[in-house]
Amino acid sequence: MQPQGDLRGLWLLLLSFFLLLFEVARAGRPLVSCPAACLCASNILSCSKQQLPNVPHSLPSYTALLDLSHNNLSRLRAEWTPTRLTHLHSLLLSHNHLNFISSEAFSPVPNLRYLDLSSNQLRTLDEFLFSELQALEVLLLYNNHIVAVDRSAFDDMAQLQKLYLSQNQISRFPLELVKEGAKLPKLTLLDLSSNKLKNLPLPDLQKLPAWIKNGLYLHNNPLHCDCELYQLFSHWQYRQLSSVMDFQEDLYCVSSKKLHNVFNLSFLNCSEYKEHAWEAHLGDPLTIKCDTKQQGMTKVWVTPNNERVLEEVANSTVTVSKDGSLHFQHVQVEDGGVYTCYAMGEAFNETLSVELKVYNFTSHGHHDTLNTAYTTLVGCILSVVLVLIYLYLTPCRCWCRGVEKPSSHQADSLSSSMLSTTPNHDPMAGGDKDDGFDRRVAFLEPAGPGQGQNGKLKPGNTLPVPEATGKGQRRMSDPESVSSVFSDTPIVV
Amino acid sequence: MQPQGDLRGLWLLLLSFFLLLFEVARAGRPLVSCPAACLCASNILSCSKQQLPNVPHSLPSYTALLDLSHNNLSRLRAEWTPTRLTHLHSLLLSHNHLNFISSEAFSPVPNLRYLDLSSNQLRTLDEFLFSELQALEVLLLYNNHIVAVDRSAFDDMAQLQKLYLSQNQISRFPLELVKEGAKLPKLTLLDLSSNKLKNLPLPDLQKLPAWIKNGLYLHNNPLHCDCELYQLFSHWQYRQLSSVMDFQEDLYCVSSKKLHNVFNLSFLNCSEYKEHAWEAHLGDPLTIKCDTKQQGMTKVWVTPNNERVLEEVANSTVTVSKDGSLHFQHVQVEDGGVYTCYAMGEAFNETLSVELKVYNFTSHGHHDTLNTAYTTLVGCILSVVLVLIYLYLTPCRCWCRGVEKPSSHQADSLSSSMLSTTPNHDPMAGGDKDDGFDRRVAFLEPAGPGQGQNGKLKPGNTLPVPEATGKGQRRMSDPESVSSVFSDTPIVV
Repeated sequence: MQPQGDLRGLWLLLLSFFLLLFEVARAGRPLVSCPAACLCASNILSCSKQQLPNVPHSLPSYTALLDLSHNNLSRLRAEWTPTRLTHLHSLLLSHNHLNFISSEAFSPVPNLRYLDLSSNQLRTLDEFLFSELQALEVLLLYNNHIVAVDRSAFDDMAQLQKLYLSQNQISRFPLELVKEGAKLPKLTLLDLSSNKLKNLPLPDLQKLPAWIKNGLYLHNNPLHCDCELYQLFSHWQYRQLSSVMDFQEDLYCVSSKKLHNVFNLSFLNCSEYKEHAWEAHLGDPLTIKCDTKQQGMTKVWVTPNNERVLEEVANSTVTVSKDGSLHFQHVQVEDGGVYTCYAMGEAFNETLSVELKVYNFTSHGHHDTLNTAYTTLVGCILSVVLVLIYLYLTPCRCWCRGVEKPSSHQADSLSSSMLSTTPNHDPMAGGDKDDGFDRRVAFLEPAGPGQGQNGKLKPGNTLPVPEATGKGQRRMSDPESVSSVFSDTPIVV
Repeated sequence: MQPQGDLRGLWLLLLSFFLLLFEVARAGRPLVSCPAACLCASNILSCSKQQLPNVPHSLPSYTALLDLSHNNLSRLRAEWTPTRLTHLHSLLLSHNHLNFISSEAFSPVPNLRYLDLSSNQLRTLDEFLFSELQALEVLLLYNNHIVAVDRSAFDDMAQLQKLYLSQNQISRFPLELVKEGAKLPKLTLLDLSSNKLKNLPLPDLQKLPAWIKNGLYLHNNPLHCDCELYQLFSHWQYRQLSSVMDFQEDLYCVSSKKLHNVFNLSFLNCSEYKEHAWEAHLGDPLTIKCDTKQQGMTKVWVTPNNERVLEEVANSTVTVSKDGSLHFQHVQVEDGGVYTCYAMGEAFNETLSVELKVYNFTSHGHHDTLNTAYTTLVGCILSVVLVLIYLYLTPCRCWCRGVEKPSSHQADSLSSSMLSTTPNHDPMAGGDKDDGFDRRVAFLEPAGPGQGQNGKLKPGNTLPVPEATGKGQRRMSDPESVSSVFSDTPIVV
């Protein structure tokens, strides 16, 4: 009978095993009911203020919001939830005593969009700590003891829009988070207020688009007072950016161990902030951004003549590109003036005015102007040397009074040959005899009709060379020849 | 000197007034600092678990998230915030003692998207209570004492997506919230679990699209057990809807004061749920919805021949409309079969199969069949009456044996004249003499070639009428004449 009894036991075991399998298959998935410490409303688990020392075990897989705030959690280990919570979008862990978070803690919650770790005791943010949270949009880390933010803590968080790091001990500004084309392309709010920031990368901050600066909170930090800081925040104030407008009284800096409001630095005698105009040279391509406080606004540009600039019109010198920027193919002098960008967003509208100044010469020409100055100087020195040679080193000056005329003719021909190589002289233009140094500046303007050609030797106006003249007589013509060298030097292209 | 002193006072007053004005103008807006009971991180105000009996006064106008959970608030009056909080998107008031909310309480927060009123002591939701919250997406009202939901409490909440009413005392199902084209067009989650619902509007619920039923939580309610309820939830189980799959064990009903799991109602002997095929009649237009569990999915239909159905192709009898439905202009018999809808969403993909059966007659023809049956019955009764008249009420039956022939001719002519009015007789068709009652059914089918024309008096086949025949002879022709009346009665259209 013994073997039969064993068989029966085996059968019963097999039967109960199959019954268990059937039960699991019937249910479709393992059913986990509401944990004892929690209040469950369909996919919400509210377990706040329950003095929990650990996360409740076996959370239902359908959980979408898990509230564990106001408990006694101190460590978030890798195995805090044995089941993957793929539906979890909000995890609230604020007001606990968390001082450790495993680098694998967020592996089971890949679709998290909102993570609240505020009011805990976190000291560091380790490398790649949040890298698994590729869907996270909001991360609250305020009121912790964070000293340093690892440069790769927020890697791969392509969806992160708001990062609150206020009320920590951070002393280095994490520029890598906000730089354009950086790790967090959607970040619109970075709260670094009430930290220990002393120095800011001011030029880098000024270059950021307004929609980042609008949400870059830096108040309540012991910043170092200087005029550059004043200029930065004055510009933000001028643009009415929220990060400055909402916290004007709390934006301070430290100088000689004293706190000063950033907008009240009279002891530094900083110059007032003034919005600069855009400057461009004739013929240059130019793109002016409509630097709005919000991303994704619909933008309309209006010219100084109150005409709307259209998108991508053939034969149009000015167009609006797809990102809403104003684009000039070749900027012209008549393009100068005040352009207005009307931006329409979901929350508010914005109007931006941009002044454009166009210089009446090409940037290439401007470069030439520098060359002109240089070559004019060389020409000037050369001509002075020549005059001196003429005046003092002319051979047979006293002996050969009879052959004075040929000698004079020789000198004149030297001067005129030097000047005649200038290519684009206007033969019709008249010239004043007073033309001198000032003409260099006048040359930069296009020659108007009837305007004198600078320093040109005009046959009809030249005094007849006397057969026999004294030293004084010869000197009279000197300034003219000198000035002609100054302005019409052939090196000018 | 007195008047001069007064003037000085006035000047001082005016000066201080102007200085105050200047100060306000300089700041741009009145600056309000962080309330004493709160922790402020830029636009977040966290004032939870502070035993606050009232909302802190003068909240900053830039506040975006206000956490007042775990306090002692009991009333939310109209004037709870003197300043409009137009930036506020989340208001957390859970775990308080709120038993009153003014109907104007939400006027200062028109852009609220998330409102948590869970775990309070609310009893009623008054008319238009939330109507000002036209941007609200999530409303948490679970764990209150709500007895009744006013039909207009949620009017004008066009953006509401999730409404949690779990763990209350609600006994009427608020159908007006979920009906298609109803007040809350974007509602994808309605949690009514753990309430006091006894009866559900079952036919209305079954008609709802799957994306609403997927988020319609009804577990933990004392529902009335019946087969219709079983069929409803069996269908939802077949469709793997979250509202049923996640809470199978908690879906129960009450019968004879006992609790039963909805899927274990063997004592009611309900028939098993079976997915029905779509039925259509030849030539009918037909639209089959791809009834997915999620809104806004990209849908692709594949025919029984594994061909993809395209959108809006000219000359195509079957197309996919813009909302992803399959549309037949005139359904044909060969259109029958199993169609598959592949739906692709952000969170998951879905495959739906739909069987289509097409009847080989038009819905108009089907209607005719009913008429035929009715009129055949009338014809049958009429002919029986005529036969009886012929048999028993024929005049001069015994006396006039010499004039028997004319009498017979008269009766025959009555019968034939009655039958000859049938218009569409096939003169070529041969007929069996056994044609009788069965031919009524055959008449409904189109006549095939060589098939006998029902009950027609065929000249070639008719027996020559004997000059003198007995009663039996006459009777022999009786069934034929009767059957002819049955089938070819002119009343049939």
